[in-house]
Amino acid sequence: MSDIIILSHGDGGILTHSLVKDIFLKYFNSDYLNKLTDSVHLNFFNEGDRIVVSTDSFVVSPIFFPGGDIGKLAVCGTVNDLAVSGALPRFLTVGFILEEGLLLSELEEVVISMARTAQEAGVAIVAGDTKVVEKGHGDKIFINTTGIGTLLEGAALGYEAVKPGDKIVINGTLGDHGLTVLTQRQELGLGEGLRSDCAPLNGIIQKALKEISGIKIMRDPTRGGLATTLKEIADFSGLDFTIFEDQVPIKEEVRSTAEMLGLDPLYLANEGKFISIVESGQADDLVRLFREDPLGRESQIIGEVEEGSGKVYLKTFFGGTKYLHYLSGTPLPRIC
Amino acid sequence: MSDIIILSHGDGGILTHSLVKDIFLKYFNSDYLNKLTDSVHLNFFNEGDRIVVSTDSFVVSPIFFPGGDIGKLAVCGTVNDLAVSGALPRFLTVGFILEEGLLLSELEEVVISMARTAQEAGVAIVAGDTKVVEKGHGDKIFINTTGIGTLLEGAALGYEAVKPGDKIVINGTLGDHGLTVLTQRQELGLGEGLRSDCAPLNGIIQKALKEISGIKIMRDPTRGGLATTLKEIADFSGLDFTIFEDQVPIKEEVRSTAEMLGLDPLYLANEGKFISIVESGQADDLVRLFREDPLGRESQIIGEVEEGSGKVYLKTFFGGTKYLHYLSGTPLPRIC
Repeated sequence: MSDIIILSHGDGGILTHSLVKDIFLKYFNSDYLNKLTDSVHLNFFNEGDRIVVSTDSFVVSPIFFPGGDIGKLAVCGTVNDLAVSGALPRFLTVGFILEEGLLLSELEEVVISMARTAQEAGVAIVAGDTKVVEKGHGDKIFINTTGIGTLLEGAALGYEAVKPGDKIVINGTLGDHGLTVLTQRQELGLGEGLRSDCAPLNGIIQKALKEISGIKIMRDPTRGGLATTLKEIADFSGLDFTIFEDQVPIKEEVRSTAEMLGLDPLYLANEGKFISIVESGQADDLVRLFREDPLGRESQIIGEVEEGSGKVYLKTFFGGTKYLHYLSGTPLPRIC
Repeated sequence: MSDIIILSHGDGGILTHSLVKDIFLKYFNSDYLNKLTDSVHLNFFNEGDRIVVSTDSFVVSPIFFPGGDIGKLAVCGTVNDLAVSGALPRFLTVGFILEEGLLLSELEEVVISMARTAQEAGVAIVAGDTKVVEKGHGDKIFINTTGIGTLLEGAALGYEAVKPGDKIVINGTLGDHGLTVLTQRQELGLGEGLRSDCAPLNGIIQKALKEISGIKIMRDPTRGGLATTLKEIADFSGLDFTIFEDQVPIKEEVRSTAEMLGLDPLYLANEGKFISIVESGQADDLVRLFREDPLGRESQIIGEVEEGSGKVYLKTFFGGTKYLHYLSGTPLPRIC
């Protein structure tokens, strides 16, 4: 077997079969994948299960970065989208688009990372597909993951449940992932000590939904960051949100590096964070529960919901107020 | 709004929102998509439904070709993978990877084609994602579709059901799609009159499964063509297959153009064809039923199953016998 990806790996013939056997089946090792049929039957649903689905493509560059890689990200991203919707992630499909010339060793490292993360998150990789494009028509590895889960009993999350007086909670520091990836691409020597927060959040989220009542909605602030995600929720709920800048957890190295680059951590992508909007009376309990988990140590109540019309205000350190809008004007490409 | 895709269309901010609203929601028009949440609840399953899933990424070049485009292909490919597994295709997720500089008008044309094909196939597009990569790191449009369906009652297809004496049936001519795409990429002036067979097959397949008993397995011979797909089935069933070259339907213009290019139509991709292996006594009825459908007019019994060890023989026009192996050695990249 050659040590790089060549076009024949994608033609459906003998090299495609070797790739599937020697790399994908070796690590993914799922009973589902072994039959190599056109599709797969998922027999593990129970009667009454409500099915939830989510899809995401990943094009992050570089494919390896402190704290993660494109494989870990592709599993976490889709697992987290299901988890914040109140679902138990169960199954993942994986579609690879590989660039001719990719080192097989790099592909293998990504696949190992996906397998490890899937195991950590408790999801089975059940179906896959691989295509190869000519050198210069892709960029090493693009991955699509589509996740299928079942709605957790009693989890009735939705925009319509959000009410004035509710509190806005975050499970930790903001901007880590986006800034880590951006600084890895630059040759400025910036980003020392930065690390992506990429992690599967289904465990901490399930625990919260089981133990704390009054959680109205959860969302993961990935592309566009906290500000854009809050603005989306505000728009859909038709309420105003006020965020207190001095309550928003941001690592000192993220704050200072972002400032040097002219970036706002509130607009930088996160891959291990989620916003919870919760009834005021349960907010402290929720924060306490989050802090017991390694993925929630720096949880904070960062704001509150008010009557309004879909605006998001930031009360700044200096007592001023500014609006938070959708990310606009500063393209931050390929951070996920 | 600019008339080409720029990096900001993929950053999750305001331009991503416009793209979703002005193009995807406009044409896909699904109740599921309108909420723009992280994932979507599929409420249309009944108790006892068995869920089937399939994923495929599409990187065909060029993105428009006679008989189809990458959007139509992305819907048909996944719908057909579900259909040949005996499933009713129900839901599709769609992940786009767009190249900076792509004309929005081209994206729109692809989206319209996807919407039309999804409607024709009776599937709902329920979730989506868009990423943008820099010019020179992608190639116009890549699309992943993941399909979710429910197993048709009574459809118990599988390798283990295939038995010596069974007949092998194809629903029409071979090689049309692969050769159409390949000739479109060349400047040789070849390919006049060629047209992709790209079509959703779930209608004709459902009808067959409902009306004809004794269908053992179905597979769609896409990448790698008829020969590779038959070899896969033979390997998994542990039986030998004999194919009669004079029974295999191939259009005259496909045969002659493939010969000029040194290609074998049995190894060229199809996107509107499926192999059925059926009990001998039902084969004629199956062919008759297929021929009543526009997608099965040129159906043929092309071979039969024998005791053996996973070999596929071709009885040639001239009375000789040759083995059909997996596609190998001639890369035919990006035909799907």
